[in-house]
Amino acid sequence: MTQNLFIGIDLGGTKISTALVDASGRIVARDYRETMAARGQKVVVERMVDAARRVISEAGVVFSQVTGVGVGSPGPIDSRIGVVTAPPNLPGWKDVPLKQLIEERLGITTFLENDANAAALGEYRFGAGQGVQNMIYVTVSTGIGGGLILNGQLYSGTIGTAGEIGHTTVLPQGPYCGCGNRGCLEALASGTAIAREGRELVQRGVPTLIAALAEGNPERVTARLVAEAAEQGDIEAQEILAEAMAYLGVGMANLVNLFNPELIVIGGGLTHLGEKLFRPVRRAIERRAFPAAARVVQVVPAQLGDDAGVLGAAAVAMAQMASTLP
Amino acid sequence: MTQNLFIGIDLGGTKISTALVDASGRIVARDYRETMAARGQKVVVERMVDAARRVISEAGVVFSQVTGVGVGSPGPIDSRIGVVTAPPNLPGWKDVPLKQLIEERLGITTFLENDANAAALGEYRFGAGQGVQNMIYVTVSTGIGGGLILNGQLYSGTIGTAGEIGHTTVLPQGPYCGCGNRGCLEALASGTAIAREGRELVQRGVPTLIAALAEGNPERVTARLVAEAAEQGDIEAQEILAEAMAYLGVGMANLVNLFNPELIVIGGGLTHLGEKLFRPVRRAIERRAFPAAARVVQVVPAQLGDDAGVLGAAAVAMAQMASTLP
Repeated sequence: MTQNLFIGIDLGGTKISTALVDASGRIVARDYRETMAARGQKVVVERMVDAARRVISEAGVVFSQVTGVGVGSPGPIDSRIGVVTAPPNLPGWKDVPLKQLIEERLGITTFLENDANAAALGEYRFGAGQGVQNMIYVTVSTGIGGGLILNGQLYSGTIGTAGEIGHTTVLPQGPYCGCGNRGCLEALASGTAIAREGRELVQRGVPTLIAALAEGNPERVTARLVAEAAEQGDIEAQEILAEAMAYLGVGMANLVNLFNPELIVIGGGLTHLGEKLFRPVRRAIERRAFPAAARVVQVVPAQLGDDAGVLGAAAVAMAQMASTLP
Repeated sequence: MTQNLFIGIDLGGTKISTALVDASGRIVARDYRETMAARGQKVVVERMVDAARRVISEAGVVFSQVTGVGVGSPGPIDSRIGVVTAPPNLPGWKDVPLKQLIEERLGITTFLENDANAAALGEYRFGAGQGVQNMIYVTVSTGIGGGLILNGQLYSGTIGTAGEIGHTTVLPQGPYCGCGNRGCLEALASGTAIAREGRELVQRGVPTLIAALAEGNPERVTARLVAEAAEQGDIEAQEILAEAMAYLGVGMANLVNLFNPELIVIGGGLTHLGEKLFRPVRRAIERRAFPAAARVVQVVPAQLGDDAGVLGAAAVAMAQMASTLP
């Protein structure tokens, strides 16, 4: 009878993704369902518990074969006590003791981590980061998040909020950010930032392909649309992307000088830009970081794609169970 | 017979400071001498070895009572292999295997760490950082350096260059930095940056107290002189300091969002500014960092003063010996 199965639950604002995972990172059973966040916290927790039960029964195993449950949740959370503090995309959640709620319902030891940290651990154990000691995971999509693997372990800080790479200031008087600060990396290099810059061009009536593709409606401008305009040769769109990726490079060079990592793994929707993202990042590291540190770091795409969330959540439980063994 | 004595050697560009230290951080014997860096690497190593012998004989102990030697050296170094790479203020040094050279001469296990990392460990074990788990040490003087204590251990990265807080970019198009990058924290908030701004005012003929104190000679402008002019009410000097400290605050807020530390310990000459340094740093953290992370961090002055170097170097040896015990 297989022991050492883990459940990873990736809780998002719109969907809950759940998987039963073995110790080698193989997914044995899966469940996808809507979060139904608008129906409130109790319903969401019930859906998570139900999804966990579903993957167990679908795999034909029993509860005692499941060693632990890991949950990746939108931040901010307090990972020490397993509480979801007040995530912007889970409206109405305030200091929810998610670890305890799930443990009580499932009777399986449960661990909570923020989603970016969980994905970092997933890439480290089962994806692009296997075999290194010091790895920074960065996700670049609507927002910019990150997770730190230092000396082979997830470093999440004093209360679990470490790794907020997207909210480091790289331009003190720069655009305002959703977090309340200004000039954050996220306000300059995320999908949201790219869309904002494109939208402003359209609003100002600049005749670009962005405006044409959006049919003159600023509200239709997305990062994807700006990327499409750039792909089709639009100079303004190319400049927006180049500037955003230059800022991303500044942020990554800062990580190289602070952490001296072997690896920076970049995931998230904007990695579809391919070399338009990776080349400026690598150049900024070469130009801005210490040569010795720049030489030892590689910048690579994430490997787990959509599975990073569930595999990472499962990896959180694996790592925690391992560290509490006698 | 006391065992568990350690030698800490703080190698600087102008002086070598050496101490025999017991496991509780008490200094048993000291030696100060000039580095004589201009006379070349061999002479400097000989002076370090001689200083170590001197503190042993002065304390009336024997070599076998000394468990380990720790050396804090100007960076960059490669701490894995104990090599000083090419420090700007040790001219002519290139890939010097300092760990090996000292071990061979003294016959005592020796460890090498960069000086800021060593000072961080010193403050952590014997100074302002006692009892915490996650602490960032920042030294603000001519340059800006730092060291990271994460999960109770010095984190020095893949080849030992982590913690280069002074060389994170906080203004991408900002002034050039000695490291070759531009807009580094060090180029905006160090003593060198403050002196540069003051000097520029004098060069441009702006009638300030800075110019008066420097007797019109831009070369005489130092950070200390700018601080003195500010103290005497000079508005321009006050603005220079305020801007520099605002940038320092940006850098520190970035550390709070990245590391979620319990403590930021600030040492170095500029801490003589007192609240003119600490207040803007604390305000920037409040305004720019995540509230939950800002709430758990304290920003305090370093406690060890000039002893941070030798105590830190000794602490490097203590930590390394402890981690290699069976």
